[in-house]
Amino acid sequence: MSIWFEEMQGKNVKFSVAVERQLVRCENEYQKTEVYESVEFGKIIVRDDKIVFSDKDEFIYDEMLCHVPMAVNPHIRKILVIGGGDGGIIRELLKYKAVKNIDVVEDDEAFARICKEYFSETASLLNNKNIKTYYMSALRFLRGKEDEYDLIINDATDPYGYKEGLFTKEFYGACYHALKSDGILIFQHGSVFYSEEEMKSRKIHRNISANFPMNFVYQFTIPTSIAGGSLIGFASKKYHPLEDLCSKKWNDLGIKTEYYTTKLHRAAFILPRYIEKIMKEEE
Amino acid sequence: MSIWFEEMQGKNVKFSVAVERQLVRCENEYQKTEVYESVEFGKIIVRDDKIVFSDKDEFIYDEMLCHVPMAVNPHIRKILVIGGGDGGIIRELLKYKAVKNIDVVEDDEAFARICKEYFSETASLLNNKNIKTYYMSALRFLRGKEDEYDLIINDATDPYGYKEGLFTKEFYGACYHALKSDGILIFQHGSVFYSEEEMKSRKIHRNISANFPMNFVYQFTIPTSIAGGSLIGFASKKYHPLEDLCSKKWNDLGIKTEYYTTKLHRAAFILPRYIEKIMKEEE
Repeated sequence: MSIWFEEMQGKNVKFSVAVERQLVRCENEYQKTEVYESVEFGKIIVRDDKIVFSDKDEFIYDEMLCHVPMAVNPHIRKILVIGGGDGGIIRELLKYKAVKNIDVVEDDEAFARICKEYFSETASLLNNKNIKTYYMSALRFLRGKEDEYDLIINDATDPYGYKEGLFTKEFYGACYHALKSDGILIFQHGSVFYSEEEMKSRKIHRNISANFPMNFVYQFTIPTSIAGGSLIGFASKKYHPLEDLCSKKWNDLGIKTEYYTTKLHRAAFILPRYIEKIMKEEE
Repeated sequence: MSIWFEEMQGKNVKFSVAVERQLVRCENEYQKTEVYESVEFGKIIVRDDKIVFSDKDEFIYDEMLCHVPMAVNPHIRKILVIGGGDGGIIRELLKYKAVKNIDVVEDDEAFARICKEYFSETASLLNNKNIKTYYMSALRFLRGKEDEYDLIINDATDPYGYKEGLFTKEFYGACYHALKSDGILIFQHGSVFYSEEEMKSRKIHRNISANFPMNFVYQFTIPTSIAGGSLIGFASKKYHPLEDLCSKKWNDLGIKTEYYTTKLHRAAFILPRYIEKIMKEEE
């Protein structure tokens, strides 16, 4: 006998994973968080019935969100990670000696506590002396911040639902102000394959275009993502993700990865024609 | 009320699509073929409980299997398509004026008949005067063929099950002999994300490496594929898929695509580090 965790990917598509047991379930005013032990993906963490990440494929997502901006500007020192309570992004960032200062903002302290208990190896990295964690809303945290960060990674995994506030024009404006003059913002850009998702992804692109002069989308395959692919936004005040890529410098750092390479970095920004067209329409 | 078509992607992962109705079900000595009308993907065709293609995402697969070799050698004239009864690959190939001669080998005539009835727009292209269809096993068809084709596309969708014969060393050897001295072979290369799939994909790579001097793998995201991604093999006696890519020539042809571009062609061959490593181990 096996039990199945089922994720609705839109109204008409379902992705299911055989699980051995539910390890924890916690519901509070922010969200419902669950952790399952699965056969194929190891432990998976679920937020409001959507998979946030799994032991088996988080490396793809975390590497691609972290190393892309770090290879464009290897001098990044001060970073804000929004919703990084699980520590995956942090693990990748700590591979850089130049990084001296990471602020993590997580609104739901229970989520961070669950990660510390069930994904202790990664989440315990948040105890590093260079990291400060703030349990509060990212919008409130950003208020009044000016010219402070080299990089903001918005790891909020669901652009909709209660986290919708993290995907508005106002939010991107706040990020713009909190970034230094050569700052980079990395964020989830949704998916365009299913029509309901496409509308949301278009809106994200409009909102970001209203704020940032440099504004690009990249893509990679990730099994637990909707329609098998993740679109990620790269917005900047100054840097072009390909023209300013420091391949040699990055490779000289000798950072170990399982997914990311500087060649793959270049490849990820080349979008299929229909996605390219959708993005151009919203610029 | 809705009914769901469920596809097992390995023992522990399931991909399900809400369907309005089953349009046809046919079981014979070759396989079970079904067509469903789905809400999200339009019509989907299913072979032995695995999705072969859907109205909504077949363009990704068919474009990426056809235009990659055609852009490397724009002088391709004579082509063999194995298992192309649905006509999707044919539709893309017929966009080239230079293509004069396409042989289609489909072992299961019932499958081709179902495609003609339920995907008539595409499958009716098989009636084109430049196309000859043979209902027989591809292995038998290839027997004795020497130096005949510029391109073979093996569109057999499941490297395992009863089609396993199309993924052996002997089969690749037969393709090698049937190809001209600058011939190209395109074929499904499985997936490496789930461990049971990984073993099969490794075996394909070993078998192909034993036959072809040029031997590459490319990748793209396709929602109805296992783990969201397809690996495709490009093997050739002569051509390198990137060094010999004729971007200008291909773009001058003015062929309309929704997914493929020559830039994406280059990007698709850049593999994530862990996949690159797996392939190197089998070469």
